[in-house]
Amino acid sequence: MAIPRLIENLIDDLSRLPGIGPKSAARIAFFLLHSNNDYVQDFSDNIKRVKAQIHFCKQCHNLTEHELCLICENDERDQNVMIVVEDVLDLLALEKIGDYNGLYHVLGGVISPLQGIGPDQINIASLVSRLEKKAITELILATNPNLEGEATAMYIKQELGDKHPEMKISRIARGLPSGADLDYADRLTLERALTGRTNF
Amino acid sequence: MAIPRLIENLIDDLSRLPGIGPKSAARIAFFLLHSNNDYVQDFSDNIKRVKAQIHFCKQCHNLTEHELCLICENDERDQNVMIVVEDVLDLLALEKIGDYNGLYHVLGGVISPLQGIGPDQINIASLVSRLEKKAITELILATNPNLEGEATAMYIKQELGDKHPEMKISRIARGLPSGADLDYADRLTLERALTGRTNF
Repeated sequence: MAIPRLIENLIDDLSRLPGIGPKSAARIAFFLLHSNNDYVQDFSDNIKRVKAQIHFCKQCHNLTEHELCLICENDERDQNVMIVVEDVLDLLALEKIGDYNGLYHVLGGVISPLQGIGPDQINIASLVSRLEKKAITELILATNPNLEGEATAMYIKQELGDKHPEMKISRIARGLPSGADLDYADRLTLERALTGRTNF
Repeated sequence: MAIPRLIENLIDDLSRLPGIGPKSAARIAFFLLHSNNDYVQDFSDNIKRVKAQIHFCKQCHNLTEHELCLICENDERDQNVMIVVEDVLDLLALEKIGDYNGLYHVLGGVISPLQGIGPDQINIASLVSRLEKKAITELILATNPNLEGEATAMYIKQELGDKHPEMKISRIARGLPSGADLDYADRLTLERALTGRTNF
C-alpha cells in the first residue's frame, strides 16, 4: 500500500458510483484533495442532506422535500394533460425542453418479467387511483421505446383505456432522431419512422 | 424548476468533478438517493476526512496522514533508487505493477512556461536537498513523455548531473506501447522506438 487507507476508502466509495471506474475514482479523489475547502465541505454536506431530506411526492412520485413536489403544487400547470415516465431523470429531460406545462406520473421502473418486476412493483396502482379522483383529457405514455417500455405502455393503455373512454391516450413518437442518417438507422427504427409518417 | 433545490445543488457539485458532465452528475445524484444509508454516510464522511487529515509527505510529497508517507517510512524498500514522478497518480500507477521497491519523489507538477510554472513552483529544490543529504545509485526520471515532461526531465538532469557524477540518471523508455500497431503510431513515437531500439 502506497497511499493512506483513508484515500483508498474514498476511491472505493467513488468507484461504486455509476459510470466511474477505478482510474476516474482516483482522479476525482485527488481533485477533491486539491479543491478549496468550502466546496468540499458543501459537497459532503449536500450528499447527506439529499439522502436525509428528499423523498417521493405522494401524488406523482417525483422527488420532493415536502409532501407534494414542485410540479404537483404548481396550480399554474395544465391540469388536463399528464405524461407517464419511467423515472425522475426522464421527467427532468422533458422539463428541460421547457415546452410542456402539464402534470407527470413517475412509474419508478418498468414491467420486466425477466427481472421479476410486475405491474404491482411500479407506481401503476397509484396512477389508476389518481385518474379516478381527477379526470384529465390526455395521458401521454413516455416510457422508453424498448421492449420493457413498450410492454409497460401497452399494459397501462389496457388498464386505463376501458375505464376512461373519454380520455385520449397517446404514445411519444418513435422514428429517426434529429441529425440521424437513414442508412445507419436500425431496422425497427426505420420501420417505425415509415409507419409513423406524418402529413407534410 | 421541477426538482428540489437540494438535489440541484448536489448535481452542481458533482458536475464540477473531473470527467463528469451534467447528465452523469444527475445519474450519480439519483444513484446516491437510492443507495443504502450506510454507504452514503460513509462516502460523505470520507470526503471530509480525506480533506482534513491528508497532506503531503514532507520528504517525497506523496500523500500521508502522518509526517512521512508509507513509502518513506518503510525501511524494507530499496534506499538506493528513486523514481521522480509528476504526481501521486503516477506513483500509484507504478506501485500497482508491484515490481518496483525503491523510493519516489513527487514533483507536484511539471515545468510549463506557458502556464507560468517554473522550476521553483514544483518540488525540485526539495529533490536537490534530499539527494545532498542521502546518496542514491540511480535516479529514474518518469515524468510524462510529452513536451513539459521531457523539459522537466531535462532540467532535473542538468541540475543534478554535475552535482552527483557518480549517480546514474535514467529516463523511462519511450517507444511503442504494448499491443500497438506500427502503422497507427505517430511519427515521434516511431522515431523514438527506432532510436531507442535494444539488443534482442
